Amino acid sequence: MGKKIRQLGVKIGKMPVGTNNCITDIAGVKVGHVTLDYPLDQKGEYACTGVTAILPHGGNLFQQKVTAASYVLNGFGKTTGLLQVNELGLIESPIMLTNTFAVPAVTQGTLQYMLDRNEDIGIHTGTINIVVGECNDSYLNSIRACPVTPYHAIEAIQKASETIAEEGAVGAGKGMICFGYKGGIGSSSRIVDVEGEDMSYTVGCMVLSNFGSSGEFLIDNYVSSSRQILSTISPTDGSIIIVLATDAPLSSRQLLRVIKRCGIGLGRTGSHFSHGSGDIVIGFSTENKIQHSTNALLETRTQLREDHPVINALFTAAAEATEEAIINSLSQAETTVGRNGNIVHAYQF
Amino acid sequence: MGKKIRQLGVKIGKMPVGTNNCITDIAGVKVGHVTLDYPLDQKGEYACTGVTAILPHGGNLFQQKVTAASYVLNGFGKTTGLLQVNELGLIESPIMLTNTFAVPAVTQGTLQYMLDRNEDIGIHTGTINIVVGECNDSYLNSIRACPVTPYHAIEAIQKASETIAEEGAVGAGKGMICFGYKGGIGSSSRIVDVEGEDMSYTVGCMVLSNFGSSGEFLIDNYVSSSRQILSTISPTDGSIIIVLATDAPLSSRQLLRVIKRCGIGLGRTGSHFSHGSGDIVIGFSTENKIQHSTNALLETRTQLREDHPVINALFTAAAEATEEAIINSLSQAETTVGRNGNIVHAYQF
Amino acid sequence: MGKKIRQLGVKIGKMPVGTNNCITDIAGVKVGHVTLDYPLDQKGEYACTGVTAILPHGGNLFQQKVTAASYVLNGFGKTTGLLQVNELGLIESPIMLTNTFAVPAVTQGTLQYMLDRNEDIGIHTGTINIVVGECNDSYLNSIRACPVTPYHAIEAIQKASETIAEEGAVGAGKGMICFGYKGGIGSSSRIVDVEGEDMSYTVGCMVLSNFGSSGEFLIDNYVSSSRQILSTISPTDGSIIIVLATDAPLSSRQLLRVIKRCGIGLGRTGSHFSHGSGDIVIGFSTENKIQHSTNALLETRTQLREDHPVINALFTAAAEATEEAIINSLSQAETTVGRNGNIVHAYQF
Amino acid sequence: MGKKIRQLGVKIGKMPVGTNNCITDIAGVKVGHVTLDYPLDQKGEYACTGVTAILPHGGNLFQQKVTAASYVLNGFGKTTGLLQVNELGLIESPIMLTNTFAVPAVTQGTLQYMLDRNEDIGIHTGTINIVVGECNDSYLNSIRACPVTPYHAIEAIQKASETIAEEGAVGAGKGMICFGYKGGIGSSSRIVDVEGEDMSYTVGCMVLSNFGSSGEFLIDNYVSSSRQILSTISPTDGSIIIVLATDAPLSSRQLLRVIKRCGIGLGRTGSHFSHGSGDIVIGFSTENKIQHSTNALLETRTQLREDHPVINALFTAAAEATEEAIINSLSQAETTVGRNGNIVHAYQF
Repeated sequence: MGKKIRQLGVKIGKMPVGTNNCITDIAGVKVGHVTLDYPLDQKGEYACTGVTAILPHGGNLFQQKVTAASYVLNGFGKTTGLLQVNELGLIESPIMLTNTFAVPAVTQGTLQYMLDRNEDIGIHTGTINIVVGECNDSYLNSIRACPVTPYHAIEAIQKASETIAEEGAVGAGKGMICFGYKGGIGSSSRIVDVEGEDMSYTVGCMVLSNFGSSGEFLIDNYVSSSRQILSTISPTDGSIIIVLATDAPLSSRQLLRVIKRCGIGLGRTGSHFSHGSGDIVIGFSTENKIQHSTNALLETRTQLREDHPVINALFTAAAEATEEAIINSLSQAETTVGRNGNIVHAYQF
Repeated sequence: MGKKIRQLGVKIGKMPVGTNNCITDIAGVKVGHVTLDYPLDQKGEYACTGVTAILPHGGNLFQQKVTAASYVLNGFGKTTGLLQVNELGLIESPIMLTNTFAVPAVTQGTLQYMLDRNEDIGIHTGTINIVVGECNDSYLNSIRACPVTPYHAIEAIQKASETIAEEGAVGAGKGMICFGYKGGIGSSSRIVDVEGEDMSYTVGCMVLSNFGSSGEFLIDNYVSSSRQILSTISPTDGSIIIVLATDAPLSSRQLLRVIKRCGIGLGRTGSHFSHGSGDIVIGFSTENKIQHSTNALLETRTQLREDHPVINALFTAAAEATEEAIINSLSQAETTVGRNGNIVHAYQF
Repeated sequence: MGKKIRQLGVKIGKMPVGTNNCITDIAGVKVGHVTLDYPLDQKGEYACTGVTAILPHGGNLFQQKVTAASYVLNGFGKTTGLLQVNELGLIESPIMLTNTFAVPAVTQGTLQYMLDRNEDIGIHTGTINIVVGECNDSYLNSIRACPVTPYHAIEAIQKASETIAEEGAVGAGKGMICFGYKGGIGSSSRIVDVEGEDMSYTVGCMVLSNFGSSGEFLIDNYVSSSRQILSTISPTDGSIIIVLATDAPLSSRQLLRVIKRCGIGLGRTGSHFSHGSGDIVIGFSTENKIQHSTNALLETRTQLREDHPVINALFTAAAEATEEAIINSLSQAETTVGRNGNIVHAYQF
Repeated sequence: MGKKIRQLGVKIGKMPVGTNNCITDIAGVKVGHVTLDYPLDQKGEYACTGVTAILPHGGNLFQQKVTAASYVLNGFGKTTGLLQVNELGLIESPIMLTNTFAVPAVTQGTLQYMLDRNEDIGIHTGTINIVVGECNDSYLNSIRACPVTPYHAIEAIQKASETIAEEGAVGAGKGMICFGYKGGIGSSSRIVDVEGEDMSYTVGCMVLSNFGSSGEFLIDNYVSSSRQILSTISPTDGSIIIVLATDAPLSSRQLLRVIKRCGIGLGRTGSHFSHGSGDIVIGFSTENKIQHSTNALLETRTQLREDHPVINALFTAAAEATEEAIINSLSQAETTVGRNGNIVHAYQF
């Protein structure tokens, strides 16, 4: 496995990074991967795909929901669950990532996982909303064969851990391509110090990168020009799913404002949110957990005062962490061979 | 002046009404009208228009902002100030109503009023956002002559009072037409009792009604059929501005959910949100006032738990109060003569 | 099976209805149902659910897409596929309706159906977007048992026909409840005559109704008051999916304007778009079919001039057809017994 | 006056620029400026502001409207007229730029200009929608004194010409600040060649830049690092208004997709769309002019096929032209002295 771009001496942005430069720097956030990597037949069909689960916390997410928001940079995508996130400003399930045609299987598995742990759902308490993001990995993966099963989703959730997450060609990132090179899972984080107070917030980002042609890549920002090489591989319908987490106490409206800035980081890498791309941001705050169904009439929430300069620092952190997470998805990914012997090279930073 | 439709024996909806069945039933809310009613020349040009000011509270609105939201049912309109309401979820000025071409003058006057009371604006603290809604009263009013001046806006604010508001052909409602009859300003309110607790919330609505053909009007819902008469007058670009106020503690996201239901009340009167209509809802909660520019990092807000049944009662209240406010704008308005001797009759309930 | 409310002598609205007063009055539109109605065990678990497929035309929907739009009245729902509908303004799959937890299975089945007929998808031409709407039928159906399989979706598509659609407790409507009575599938249509020209457009609506308490139902609008009875059954998370079809040539922006008016029809029945309800509208126009992937640079589309009065007639038609489709879903549904012997009565109009 | 950054040897992006690298490269587009630059008293109050008019074409804009869209990157702003642009997808007036508190005066003047040329407005044909964007120039300009009058707006429209537009500290840009240096009006354009056909489209951008701290500015992208200097001036409520024009035939939905990419260009300069910033994009296409009020039922519009690669080239062009227009607003602006002797230096590229 490769290294994070920062370990290679490239700094992105100006803000300090968190302990592990990973979305798991936000206390409680867990990440789990299941990777599929095997032939499906002897004619070239190949499972080169996977599932990644991001858990906002380790408890029962249906019982203890988190404040959330979503933002669509370009909506050529099949991400599911965002209607209810937008209406209620909360997430009540793991956030799952996978390939485009695995969305039904992963939704089904995640639903099953949640039903098993919440016996009242569908009996006394209505339904549950599952959030699944996707990119199209059909160059490397036999996407029409639908090798991902509901159980892979359950497994990814069960494997989720608070330790630093694996990146690159792993989990949902196994078959993804970014700027013509091997992309996939990348993560980064930023520390937002509160001036004049002995405290800070953390912003963490995890991306599933699968977008861009090598001609678009603003390589100069990350390596010396002599090292540049070109790739002719470009995903037909590229996409990027960006998951932003923070422990800053934000309302869903404030969180929406923060995650809108992820597009800045994406744009700085060279993306133009291309037509066939599902460029989606999903954000959550681990503060202010919202308990499912109590008898209470009122609840009290603490949120940031938006005229405090910290809001701008959070905006900057969102842009920087997104940009670095994308570059990390490239720098950590290994050269991968998949369907029909198709090969996607790692970019040599 | 006419009577409220309820005083005429017609009940709309099922919920109890507030003390005065008026938006001023929400403690602190003030309403002021300035009415223009005079010839502009001897050839028929006539000022038949006005300004209405709705103040969320009697203090300095820039220093003590209120939680707010807006919703566009149909956007053929020139209402101003909503961009910032949507971004920040707050209102920091009086909400002004007037005719379409008076929006600049009323914005200017309201701006002047607020600048005079906040000497830091434009020097140390940036700008202020003014909210002005409008309808087109050109059948009765010489709208091209722009008879409304900035001073009329200031006067409307200064005249604002917490007593029950005048309705009908008054203030911004002076020249408006609804379902072919004299419309204008109407108001209504509802009490939302919290089951099992000795407390309640109030929802109040004020409309500026200027929409609909008499053929659309669902008159049967309000009078016995023998009383129905038809009008041939229909505003070219009708509109309705709906202002919803409540003392329930709601976040701006929750408030948006509540004010979306105002369209239900509008639809029940017979409207189909016609093409040329600016059908706009503006809502605010007088709870959780937000102080301008402090040094604080955090703030605490109390809000409704959305799984509590009260949220549905607030939805119903918004629909009922809107419907009744519209019918009140008709039942209270007097037959009015304006430009070129054009006459719009009061509907005889 | 019951009758359409109009056959019972109740007229809703003022516009003329289409040949069969059904969404299939729009030429080419096909509807197919698969109904599940059997015990799952001997302890009371019961499959009382189904799948309904609405096909905008009988050809290959991926190759010949239709102009489309969606609108969220209340987003407490798990409908999938709307992101891409909103971005591109088109639909390229059958529109599927089912129960909440069957969305993954129905998406999977529909995907399979489309993959089988489009061998380039996932190989040369990227992905396909599947649209599935849902309501929660857990009072009558053992929703946690997930009895709907992908094959049921394929079957519903294959059974789809241009003849008048079955309504009531059928297909996805099998287990649904509306205002405390048996609801489900309902349909209605309207003719929009173009004044001065010998031509007309048709607007058709199909709903999956599963919302409201009997106390909310504005029964007076449909029956004499002596006939009213009350039900205590109310869905925990009610919902309504409204599908609006037309042969009027509309852009996706114009279509969005038209389908927004479906909420007026819903509100007139008594709904307040309750908190736990996923109230979603999906609309399409069968004119201006958009061919998948050609080499052409430009395309020409014919659309309505919005200053023509027909746009307002389309608005009215959308409201009227929605209202009548909802009442038809009630009048056509039969008393149904499901999970644990739970019974939901037909409303006796 | 300074030079365009490209004349200084700095290339931004990869696409070819238009004839004059200006928004007026789109045939028919006209720009006019009125600049105010004089003391208001002897105590330091100073008019350092202005008005800029962008005319989509030289004819009667109310009679021949253009397809349009708007997009809000950050909504802390007072831009007016966007409600109706969003509803109808068209613009029917000049697009005006000015300072925050001059929005009422400029709206009034533009309204008067349009009324004088369209005698039916407000009599037979309803109203007209005026679009005015703004930034806060209160560091250099006595914004509370409101020196801009309606006549200045009329003058700016009358001065508008198709020749290359003046840039920098001119018109609405007179008092603006960007990254701590003198900003204001900037423009750039791009040519989109259609592969395999002997034709091309042009994309042009004009910005009113007034945002950012010098610490945010990604100066390295534009000059060698030895040349960097820091400024401590930062606008309290910065903003940027971005106007994008094209002759590509786009629907309003397609145009919205294109102008969303302007945020990429803005982000690449260093902006994070800060909290107090009104970052607004307004776009129009000069193709498919829409005639006001005919008797026709239908109209035919030509639009781009979105699966053609040209859509991605338009996205890239929007990002590149925006970035370069911003840098041009800096490189062309002169050091300016205003209110209380406040001085803002030109950045020395």
